[in-house]
Amino acid sequence: MTDTTLSHDALNGIVMQIFQGAGLSPQNAAALARVIVAGEGDACKSHGIYRIEGCLRTIKAGKVVPDAVPQMHQDDSAIVRVNAGGGFSNAAFDAGAPVLAERCRTTGIAAMVINDCTHFAALWPEIETLTDMGLAAMAMCPSYASVAPSGGTDPLMGTNPFAFGWPRAEGDPYVFDFATSVAARGEIELHRRAGTPLPEGWAIAPDGRPTTDPKAALAGAMLPFGGHKGSAISTMIELLAGVMIGDLTSPEARDALGSLTLAPAHGELIIAFDPEKFAAGRPGDPFARAETLFAAITAQGARLPSQRRFKARAETRAKGIP
Amino acid sequence: MTDTTLSHDALNGIVMQIFQGAGLSPQNAAALARVIVAGEGDACKSHGIYRIEGCLRTIKAGKVVPDAVPQMHQDDSAIVRVNAGGGFSNAAFDAGAPVLAERCRTTGIAAMVINDCTHFAALWPEIETLTDMGLAAMAMCPSYASVAPSGGTDPLMGTNPFAFGWPRAEGDPYVFDFATSVAARGEIELHRRAGTPLPEGWAIAPDGRPTTDPKAALAGAMLPFGGHKGSAISTMIELLAGVMIGDLTSPEARDALGSLTLAPAHGELIIAFDPEKFAAGRPGDPFARAETLFAAITAQGARLPSQRRFKARAETRAKGIP
Repeated sequence: MTDTTLSHDALNGIVMQIFQGAGLSPQNAAALARVIVAGEGDACKSHGIYRIEGCLRTIKAGKVVPDAVPQMHQDDSAIVRVNAGGGFSNAAFDAGAPVLAERCRTTGIAAMVINDCTHFAALWPEIETLTDMGLAAMAMCPSYASVAPSGGTDPLMGTNPFAFGWPRAEGDPYVFDFATSVAARGEIELHRRAGTPLPEGWAIAPDGRPTTDPKAALAGAMLPFGGHKGSAISTMIELLAGVMIGDLTSPEARDALGSLTLAPAHGELIIAFDPEKFAAGRPGDPFARAETLFAAITAQGARLPSQRRFKARAETRAKGIP
Repeated sequence: MTDTTLSHDALNGIVMQIFQGAGLSPQNAAALARVIVAGEGDACKSHGIYRIEGCLRTIKAGKVVPDAVPQMHQDDSAIVRVNAGGGFSNAAFDAGAPVLAERCRTTGIAAMVINDCTHFAALWPEIETLTDMGLAAMAMCPSYASVAPSGGTDPLMGTNPFAFGWPRAEGDPYVFDFATSVAARGEIELHRRAGTPLPEGWAIAPDGRPTTDPKAALAGAMLPFGGHKGSAISTMIELLAGVMIGDLTSPEARDALGSLTLAPAHGELIIAFDPEKFAAGRPGDPFARAETLFAAITAQGARLPSQRRFKARAETRAKGIP
């Protein structure tokens, strides 16, 4: 380790200190630090220490409860509910994940609903928590109105991330986590800071016309990935992880915040699957069969998602985080 | 009704007769006729009577059990299993749907697994069966290897349809159902028959290069929608609705069939959500809030998915199917 790198643990300590200094309780600071260090350690810059500033702004604006204690609620259904009590979603997820996993092993499929939370992080740290327990998982949440529906002109949906993971016995899991907009808002922010134009097709200006100017894009609307198909998936996320769970949709979140520069307040939906339970009584081992599929993908030169992240992780674990 | 149109019922009778003539049991013929008439009645030509020929080919090739009786299996989990016994998936879905709905009202989220079936139909008739019962639902299945993963060169994944629906108290439900390839295989077939070139970006030729020739595309590989994001969703479908449920993946289905001109044999995964159960105890009526979202989409000139189908349905119900 040279003087320009930090170990994961050392960075974690610094981030913890920053958040506790800003008034977060240890439980909330630890949960937040975990995902920010994971982002930076995976060289996922748009979700790393870059996000600290936005979190601090959100705390300072009084839009998050700094010492919230997540409240769990469980009944005889396959739904595990965690109320974040106005805190960041991360502590709520950490509290609910083991309960979700336990329920899922009985029911085969189970859902975790996080309500009344402030969200800012990538979903893959949550997905990887569940794949580490041998479960497959899907996660999604609204954001705040910044993406126009396909064929529309005004921001309505959020960048609405959609993530999925499948456990692998050896090495890193199969994980994807992407914005249902062409690009994540953080990527457009990075272009704005760097003063570089956006690729074509990312966004429209306030007048509804295509633009490559990051400022015009941030003032106008981003576009969904994959045209009407991505737009439909983004709408599904508003319905399932906003409307259905009784939490804010992206337009409601923007109205509630009155700003796009603070972390959005809303809920989140996580669906867990127990592959062993689903595959029981059927021919073949699902984990071995998944490996056959992955091998067929990489054999033709295509990449599995998240490989860049995993490579960066191995490097920063060995050599420290630059 | 003129002599060039048929009512839904009249067409249904004809299709029933064709399938029973080909040896299908009444239960299987009725389930198949229902979705084919629905496709034709919605002017969804690629899933209408055009598909009869392929079904007959599949029956004649001995690749489907014509008098299969679906077998249900339920335990204390949230998974409802229906074994199609080698028959078409449609009778299995019809048998399992009410059981899935009942289970979902208790558990909030539940899954239906259809195994050992031959699949050929669109997923939206199944989704609409569940939205008609007041549930939200997601459905997916592999197909047979015809789509290259993003960055790859050879067919591996199927066109892997992904469908979702949300119930609406008045009028037609919110429903989308699309191939995770840029285009459905049926659309490329229609271009081949019409002798028209494909739009750019749909497919690659056997040498891995982009092509607009439908024949080269059918011999080469189709491309996933939305680049690496669509490719990741398609892979998720192979994992959840192939590997996890202990049924064939798309490459396995093609190997098992030895052909792309017969309907593929595999399984299907349907996930049902009870919005009332999820929203219980939370502020707001989820159905009313969903309407607010839909109104905001259409108010800016964007369309909800399936509107063309619903318009055609209203017309063919009033005036008959051309």
